[in-house]
This record gives sequence, structure tokens and C-alpha cells, in this order.
Amino acid sequence: MHTLADIATRFGLELRGDATVTIIGVNTLADAKSDQISFLANTIYRAQLATTRAAAVVLAEKDVAMVTGAALVSRNPYADFARIAALFERCEPASPGIHPSAVIAADAVIDASARISAYCVIGARSRIAAGAELGPGCVIGNDCDIGAHARLVARVTLVARVKIGSRVLIHPGAVLGADGFGLAFDQGAWLKVPQLGGVVVGDDCEIGANTTIDRGALGDTVLEDDVRLDNQIQIGHNVRIGAHTAIAGCAAIAGSTRIGRHCLIAGGAGIIGHLEIADRVTVGAMSLVTHDLREPGEYVSGTPIQPKREWRKNAARFGQLDQLARRVRKLLGERNDE
Amino acid sequence: MHTLADIATRFGLELRGDATVTIIGVNTLADAKSDQISFLANTIYRAQLATTRAAAVVLAEKDVAMVTGAALVSRNPYADFARIAALFERCEPASPGIHPSAVIAADAVIDASARISAYCVIGARSRIAAGAELGPGCVIGNDCDIGAHARLVARVTLVARVKIGSRVLIHPGAVLGADGFGLAFDQGAWLKVPQLGGVVVGDDCEIGANTTIDRGALGDTVLEDDVRLDNQIQIGHNVRIGAHTAIAGCAAIAGSTRIGRHCLIAGGAGIIGHLEIADRVTVGAMSLVTHDLREPGEYVSGTPIQPKREWRKNAARFGQLDQLARRVRKLLGERNDE
Amino acid sequence: MHTLADIATRFGLELRGDATVTIIGVNTLADAKSDQISFLANTIYRAQLATTRAAAVVLAEKDVAMVTGAALVSRNPYADFARIAALFERCEPASPGIHPSAVIAADAVIDASARISAYCVIGARSRIAAGAELGPGCVIGNDCDIGAHARLVARVTLVARVKIGSRVLIHPGAVLGADGFGLAFDQGAWLKVPQLGGVVVGDDCEIGANTTIDRGALGDTVLEDDVRLDNQIQIGHNVRIGAHTAIAGCAAIAGSTRIGRHCLIAGGAGIIGHLEIADRVTVGAMSLVTHDLREPGEYVSGTPIQPKREWRKNAARFGQLDQLARRVRKLLGERNDE
Repeated sequence: MHTLADIATRFGLELRGDATVTIIGVNTLADAKSDQISFLANTIYRAQLATTRAAAVVLAEKDVAMVTGAALVSRNPYADFARIAALFERCEPASPGIHPSAVIAADAVIDASARISAYCVIGARSRIAAGAELGPGCVIGNDCDIGAHARLVARVTLVARVKIGSRVLIHPGAVLGADGFGLAFDQGAWLKVPQLGGVVVGDDCEIGANTTIDRGALGDTVLEDDVRLDNQIQIGHNVRIGAHTAIAGCAAIAGSTRIGRHCLIAGGAGIIGHLEIADRVTVGAMSLVTHDLREPGEYVSGTPIQPKREWRKNAARFGQLDQLARRVRKLLGERNDE
Repeated sequence: MHTLADIATRFGLELRGDATVTIIGVNTLADAKSDQISFLANTIYRAQLATTRAAAVVLAEKDVAMVTGAALVSRNPYADFARIAALFERCEPASPGIHPSAVIAADAVIDASARISAYCVIGARSRIAAGAELGPGCVIGNDCDIGAHARLVARVTLVARVKIGSRVLIHPGAVLGADGFGLAFDQGAWLKVPQLGGVVVGDDCEIGANTTIDRGALGDTVLEDDVRLDNQIQIGHNVRIGAHTAIAGCAAIAGSTRIGRHCLIAGGAGIIGHLEIADRVTVGAMSLVTHDLREPGEYVSGTPIQPKREWRKNAARFGQLDQLARRVRKLLGERNDE
Repeated sequence: MHTLADIATRFGLELRGDATVTIIGVNTLADAKSDQISFLANTIYRAQLATTRAAAVVLAEKDVAMVTGAALVSRNPYADFARIAALFERCEPASPGIHPSAVIAADAVIDASARISAYCVIGARSRIAAGAELGPGCVIGNDCDIGAHARLVARVTLVARVKIGSRVLIHPGAVLGADGFGLAFDQGAWLKVPQLGGVVVGDDCEIGANTTIDRGALGDTVLEDDVRLDNQIQIGHNVRIGAHTAIAGCAAIAGSTRIGRHCLIAGGAGIIGHLEIADRVTVGAMSLVTHDLREPGEYVSGTPIQPKREWRKNAARFGQLDQLARRVRKLLGERNDE
């Protein structure tokens, strides 16, 4: 249990309002009760400041006037709210040790402070560092390294030659280090190209549920530190992703593309192979990147959603757009090429 | 074994043709043999009525004249065919009991009529209701509830605080209750926002293979009753999906969006976060919804598929479309804004 | 260890340069050391020929003049490089046998030369042929057949009635044979349509991590020989894919569509249900196919990526494109329909 005063002090926030209220949790503006803290970080919820019953709201100075109860003034309300919320997270620390059902290669090295849960399988020459936790059903192949305090929640697979940094968090169903999709067409059929590289994941990365990261064909697929991947993302072989880049669900990056630092790739976006994406590039939802993006900024492809009746007419015209443009040039007395 | 007469009677269908034929199965119009029943529900297969060897065809009154053999006249041929097909489904009912290899927390509660298969792991305070079936390799975390006669086919993961209604069917590789993708950017790096909520899945829902449903940040991610999700769908934290909505493969719904009842979301569609989608909205395949859809109806984005040579010219013109429109306005003697 | 002369002879390549160099591995042009072989198959890397330190480069006759060191002249550099790379692949052959933790139905038939790893579960009447390998945690349901020398890397699920050809390779997390997404709407709710068919996968296919292939509703879902699927692909029920077709990551094929032989479907592409795609069709990345494609060739949909500021203007005009076209027709004195 924490008073508002405790919380303000602990996180260096300026409190405006009754400091003695006891706080037992956090919640949204809409659902907060009088002993919970809420926050405002997305302006579409600003109107809810007038009606929230929250004991206090973490918000920016500019929004303080709109709140009716107590305010915790923050320069970064979402980050400070995250820190406060962590106070109320139910943590059931995993005890170290190796479950008797785990199948571990004779030459694997497991730190005594690591936890290996039921039905994990760990391959030859793999190493699990201090404080790392493998939840139930993880399969770790040969020549893998799992860093200190990394956590594989459950049913994570590292196929071979996958190095995971410290404090990396990997959600269930993720598969790292599967063969890249390398095929040569020869004499009427596909020939598999050996995938000889590995995967290297930096410190503090997070990898979502059912996300796949293939190992390199030659050299490694690399995530630098603090890369954050949501669920069901596909990362092709030999991709490199710069530090602090975040990628939302269902995005896909094809082989050998290099993405800069501090990029934001929205959900369902695609980036074809062998491209260079600069630092601080933002790619819109379901946009497809087909050439290098050398300047920071926001990039988008696609068309707006419309009622089908209208869309159908416009889409049909898209199929004749070149012709339309030529006719306009003609009307303007300009020459059409070709 | 069932005669046509039996089947017509059992499902209340009007039979036109020889009632004595013995039926041993169901099949498509193209492949049915003379002791199988087929159906017509999609008009693109209507021409096959003339050549099918099926003993009888389940179809609508309006199509009866086109069939050469027996007809089972139905107001909903696809639904009635589904009921008939279920007669011929090979069912090997799972016997109740807990496989000796299952690892179950001391305070988990498993109904005596439930089945827990090999290599399942069940966490603290979780409860499995009567007649529920967990196939091999399921991982159920802490504080989960699995409703009566729910079936997790195999290798399903419920991470934490996931409540599953009665008769819910979940296919292999699905992950429910993983952390939502909540990140605050602070002091040059990402800070994880605790994901304190859960997932609530209503009765009679179906969840496809490798689909992921994240748990809420604050409050729960909710599927109301009879929501049907195909494979590889991504549902972000705090999404709410109304009853009887069906979503096809590879669609993705970003966080905090609310989808109405009786919606149909086609394959590969995306809906960005914090939106409201009304009841009875249909979203086209691979369409992206970027704003609220407040009226029922069908919505689409994207452009038609074309041979690349043509597409390339049209797509290039799309990149100059605003300029083109301005030139047309000028030709018409209208003023361009800005 | 192999000399360049050995390698040239073994693969029938013409060597130009010092034949005595000892080769210890393969690498990219950029990273190769003086005892490694590299290759040139993608013209975007051609400039690296001038600076590579590779002992030799596998390349086409037309590029030989540009290389500074030794050349291995090939009519198919990528394929010949793949063969050379395989010389240096670390192979740890799996020993045959059944891990004591495997749970195998009494009437399943496992060839004595097959390998069944820890925590596999194999259902009734399933058969595993000679030399097949099931990695850890695979779940094989009832009535499945796994062909000779097939390899399921780890955590692969075959739900029921799945037949896998010889030498098929399946990566972790793949789910074959789950229920197709068959639903009939009846009396205000969804009715499940029984999925009575199976999956048939031909010889020499490869199936990527977390890819899903549903079993047929009636009849089977079929992959002919040498079909290559990347990660996170969704194949709906009763799809048929012709021999030698390759499909890149995150593509999705809806139910009952038939794809020809030697097709190339790029990443994230979608094909709606009940279509016919001819042999030798190429579909562009993230393109959506909504009608039959009866001619070979390359097909694309979508719009080019642009800076958001420009995209926004163009996209707004797309929403009025039909109107724009009508105005141009009017300017040209043409009649608009309707």
C-alpha cells in the first residue's frame, strides 16, 4: 500500500491534491475507482478527465487544469504511469533450479541461479546465464546462449546458433534461428541453400508471441539492443535491426534488409529484401517499402478505406490511371512520352 | 448408415427423389459418389449440378430444377449440409483423466470429467471445468479458467489470467494472454508498461491455429460469445469483439479497438488501435481501417491486381495524383486550395 | 578441407585462378576472408567484386571480368554456391531411436531407423517411415503418415489425417491439419461445418516456422512435390498448390483456391478463395488477388510508398478518383455512363 505522497516522492512527480489518499492500484480514466491512479497520454481520452473517479491522474502540465481530482504532473505521463503500475504488478518470482523432466545435453552449461521449467529440452554446447528463466516446453537447440535474466515465457524455440542478450523477454510460440528461406532454382526444381549463420539478439529486447526470426544464411541475423518486436512478426535471414527500433504486430522484414535505430514500423507493414532504412524512419500500418528510405520521416502506402460501392468505382479508375493522366496532358497541350 | 429418408426426416428437409438410397458419407459436387450427399451453397459451383453423381444434393428451392438426381430442399443449404456432415464425422471421444506426465500446481482445480493429456502444465489457482479437454503439450499459466467442454486441441498456451467460456475450441499454437505491446519511450530507450489485465473469451468461441490474443494492460481483452477467429490472427490488448463476429485468417486488430456484433472481417485485414467499429460491418480482404466505422455496411481499401507492366504505370501516376487533380481543376477553371 | 581445384572438379565449374588455395568456408562478398569462397547472384552486390578478399567467387561468365581474384564460372552461380556451401554445413546426424519420454499410441508404426525425440506424442494408426526425424515436442495426431527421411525440426503439430511425403522439412511451430475455417450462419449464430478431409504434402516440400495448413472440409488440402513455403504462411482448407511453387513469408491463400506449378508468391500476398491461378504466375509482395489469373506473368496491386505528407494528398484524391475521371471525360466532350 502506498499513499499518493509516497508515489509522488518515489517517482519525482509534482503532486497537486490530497497527498494522504491510499492507492491500491491503477486503471483507465473510465474505470478507475477512488483508490486507483490513472493517466492521460493519448489526447482522444482527454474528455474523460472531467468524469474520472481516479484518486489521481498522471498527466502533463498542460492538461492539469482539466482534471477535477488530484494530479501527478509529469513530463512523460505514459512512462511515469508505467513505473507506478509496476508497483502493483503481481510478481511470482520463479525459483531457480532445473525441473526433473528437463532434457539437457551433457555439455550444456546452466547457471545455478537459472530456472529451467518442465519439459524444456536444451541442446549441445548451449549456455544459460545467471537468473535466466525458461518457462515450460522451451526447446533450445545446439550452440545457443541465453543471457543473464533473460526470460522465455513458455514454448519458445531457439533452433541453433541463437545468442540472446541480457534481460531479453520472449513470448510463447516465438521461433528464433529457423532456416532462412534460401532457395536456388536449378534443373527444374528447388535446391536448398544451406543456412550457416545464427541469430544475435541484443540486451533488453522483447520478442512477441509467435514471432519468427530466421538465422542468417552467411553471417547472422541481428537485433541490436532494446529492439521491441510485437506478436507474429517475421524477420528474414540476415536482417539487421538498429537499437531502440519498435515493430508492431504482423509486420515482416525480408532477407538482408538493414533497418536503422529508433525506427517505428507499424502493424502489418512489409519491407522487401536487401534495402537500407535510415534511422528514425516511421512506416505506416500495412505499408509496403520497396526501395531504400534514406531520410528520417514517416512513409505510407495504400489507399483510404471507403464504403465498397464508392471504393469499387475509384479502384476501377486506378486501373486506368495512366490513361487518365495522359488525357489530361493532352488537354493541356503537353506531350506524352513513349 | 442412414437412408436418404432418415436424413430428410432428421433434419426436416423436403426430399425429392428416391428415399431408399443408403448414404455412407458426404462430398463435393465434383467428387461425390452415388452413396454420398453433396450440397450447393456457392453459385460458382452451380454448373456441377448437371454432372454430379451424388445420391442427393442439399440445395435451395430455386436451384432444384437444375439437379438431375435427388434433392434435399433447404432454406439454408450450407447449415443443413453441415448438420448432415456431422453424422459422418469420425469422433474418438477423449476419455477423462489426467495423464501422469502432466505437471499441475497444487492449488489448481481439475474437474474429474476433464481430460488433461501428456505434457500439459497447469499453473497456480487455475481451474478446468467439467468435460474440458486439454490436448498434448498445453501450457496453462496462473489464474486461468477453462469452461465446461472447452477443447484445447494441442500445444495451446494461456499465459496468465485467461478465462475461457464453455464449449470454446482452440487450435494448436494459439497463445492467449501474452503481454500486450505496451511501451513508453523515456530517456532514449523503451520502458515496458506492465500488462495487468487478462483475457475473457465467451462461450462457443473458436480460435484458430497460431492466433494470438494479448491480455489487457488495464482491464481485459474480451471476446463475447460465438466469436470465430481463423488462424494467425493478432488481437491486441484491450480489444473488445462483439458476439457472433467472425474474422478470417491473418487479420490483425490493434489495441483498445472495439468491434461490434455480427461483423465479418476478411483475411489479412487490419484495424488500427482505439477505434469503434459498429455492428454488422464487413471489412474487405487486406483492407486497412484507420478511422471509426459507425454505419453497418461493407468497407474496402486497396487497388485491383493488374499485370505488373500496367500496374507500374498506374502506380507511378498515383504518386502524382494530387497534382493531376489540381490540373483538372485548373482546366475546369476552378480554384485549387492552399 | 578442400582446395579450389577439388571444388571446381567436384561441381564441374571452370576455375580461373590459383587452384591450390585451401578453402575452409563460404561467406558474402563483403565479409569473405582469403580462405573462403563467395558468390555473385544478385546484381546489387556486383560492385563488391572489386573489393572482396574471397579466395574465389562463383559467378556467371558475364561477370568474370570484374573479379580481381579467382573465379569459379557457373551457369547458375546461386545453385552452385549452395552446393559448395553444403560442404561446410555442420551436420550432427540424429541417431535413430525413440526417446523414453515419447508417448506413442499402441497401434502407431514407427520404423526402426526413425528418430522420435523427447516429449513427442504420436496418435492412433499413425506411421513414421524410415529415416524420418521428429525433433522435440512434436504432436502427431491420429491417422498421419510421415514419409521417409522427412524432418520435423521441433514443436511441429500434425492434427489429424496429414500425409507428409519423403524428405519433407517442417520448421518449428508449424501446424498442419487443423480444422478449416468452415462456418454456416444459422438462426442467429455460427454453426461449425465438420472438416472431414486431410492434408497431403508431396515429396521434397519445405514448410516454414509457424506456418499453418488447414485440413480439407471434404477432400484434402494438397501440396504437390517440391512446394516451398516460408514462415507464417496460412493455407486454407482444400487449397491445392502445384509442384515447384514457392511462397514467401506471411502470404495467405484462402480456401479452395488452386495455384499452378512454378508459381512465385511474394511475401504478405493474399489470394482469396475459390480461384484458379495458372502455372508460372508471380504475385508481388502484399498484393491481393481477387480473380482468376489465367495467364502466366507477374501481377501486382497496391500503391507506392511515399512520404506521408505527399501520400496523404494523393490518397485523398484516390477517394475522388471516379469523379475526377468523369470530369476529364466531360472536358473531352465524352459521355459518362450511368
